[in-house]
Formats: sequence, structure tokens, C-alpha cells
Amino acid sequence: MPQNPAADAHEKNRAAIGQTVANFVSAWNTHDAHAFAAAFTEDADFTNVAGTHANGRANVEAFHAPMFAGVFKDSHQSAVIRSIRFLRSDLASVDADWQMTGAKTPDGVARPPRQGLLDFVMARQNDGSWLIEVLHNAELSNSSAAPPAK
Amino acid sequence: MPQNPAADAHEKNRAAIGQTVANFVSAWNTHDAHAFAAAFTEDADFTNVAGTHANGRANVEAFHAPMFAGVFKDSHQSAVIRSIRFLRSDLASVDADWQMTGAKTPDGVARPPRQGLLDFVMARQNDGSWLIEVLHNAELSNSSAAPPAK
Repeated sequence: MPQNPAADAHEKNRAAIGQTVANFVSAWNTHDAHAFAAAFTEDADFTNVAGTHANGRANVEAFHAPMFAGVFKDSHQSAVIRSIRFLRSDLASVDADWQMTGAKTPDGVARPPRQGLLDFVMARQNDGSWLIEVLHNAELSNSSAAPPAK
Repeated sequence: MPQNPAADAHEKNRAAIGQTVANFVSAWNTHDAHAFAAAFTEDADFTNVAGTHANGRANVEAFHAPMFAGVFKDSHQSAVIRSIRFLRSDLASVDADWQMTGAKTPDGVARPPRQGLLDFVMARQNDGSWLIEVLHNAELSNSSAAPPAK
């Protein structure tokens, strides 16, 4: 069987990126801020659906910990990778559609299911894993969300 | 006066990125889809506030032309760069807060002022200019937008 090292590396990178998204989602669903932040690089930039920004893995953890103990305590998120664009061989722009149930308002009132788009820049690390260098999240309303253009 | 070529290059890149954002906003405000698309690379990926995606400069133009003649015909946008993160010396993640007035619904009803966050990946071109390689836009509601975390 002919070998194709470039295709192999590509497939390996895509799998590693998928693993990082899986870790991110899994940490969300166990409401574990430390594991969640471990998906980010030491100096990552995070911006949430409200445009609020946190810089660095430690601040990403500190930002999420109270929410995982509060409004997101019973939340469940799923995410499906929509696209991976390699900006460089070791840097990628990754889009993932998400859906969330079980979120509450600060007053403890159940929120309806939410959906949106996670937009990552991920960088390959020395061990072959990929970590989040930049993340922007966006919430999409049910009413304004159009089907993706073909 | 001591010279600092690295700082000079950095300043030059920041200025060129600012120019691309200025061109982008200016094209929006003249409702010129061709000029708007010229701020993107040939193979750029664009995703709007509803999560709708278009690939390539020509499709970015085709996507915006009917809106610039329709719902955005009388719209005015302003944008202020919030942050520039150099991913590589010739690749940057750029965030810009935007505000828009004058947009209408498809029925022609005036919409209230809108605001959001443009999140670009820009790449330096051979001529020293920077073009948009990836753009995600997000709308922020007035109610949910928290002040940036310090």
C-alpha cells in the first residue's frame, strides 16, 4: 500500500484537534474549570458570548469556576466541528456548532436551550496535542439563525 | 536616535491592520460589496452573526451585494480595534467592537442600533498590506453585554 506521510500528518492533526474539542466539552459537562482551562495555552485569549474577555489559562479557569458552580451547574453542552482551516501546518482555525441545555439565569430560573458557534484558533504543541490559543464564542438566536449558505 | 527595526516593523504592521479595518468599514458605509470583498484574501472564510458562511472573495461579494442594496442600504457602521494578537509575524488575530445604525428588517422596518464584535484572522501580503483570511462576526445584545473583564 503506498504511503502518504503528508496525508497521515493531516489526519493526525485533525484527530488531535477533535480530541481537544472533546476534552473541552467533557470538562464543561463535568463543570470542571481546571480541566476546562487545560484545553487552553498558558497565554490564551478567551472571549465569551457577551464579549467579555479573559487572558491566560489561569484567568480562564477563574472566570469559569463560579459559573460552573452557579448558572451552568446543571448545564450540558454538545459540540460538532463544522470546519477546520489550517492557517499554518501547526495553527488552525476551527469552528464548532454547540447546543446547551440546563443553563439557568442568576436567579435560578431555567433557560431555554441555547445554541451558537465556537470559533477557535488552535496551535499544535510539542507533544502533538493541539491547544486553544484564541477562542471567541457566539450565541445564535433561534429566530435569526439561517441555515449555512451552500 | 537609536533605531529599533523590530519595533518599527511591529508599528508598521499595526498601522496596516488598522488600514484594512478602515477600508472594511468605509466599504460598508458606501455599501460597495466589491470594495468590501477586496479586504479579504482570495480564499477567505466569512461567517456572519447568524452563523451563515461564505468561502472566497467572490462569494463574500455576492453574499453582501443584495444586503447592501437592501436591509443595509442606509446602514452606517463604526468599528474600534479592541486588540491585536500576533499569531505569527505575518498572521494576527484582531478584535474590533462595532456599532451599527440605519439597518432595516426585510420588511423595511427600521431596526434599533446594533452592536457586536468582529473577530478577524488577518495575514500580511507581499506588498505589506494585511487582508482578512478568516472573519467571524457576533452580535451582542444590549442586555447581555457585560463590560470587558479587567
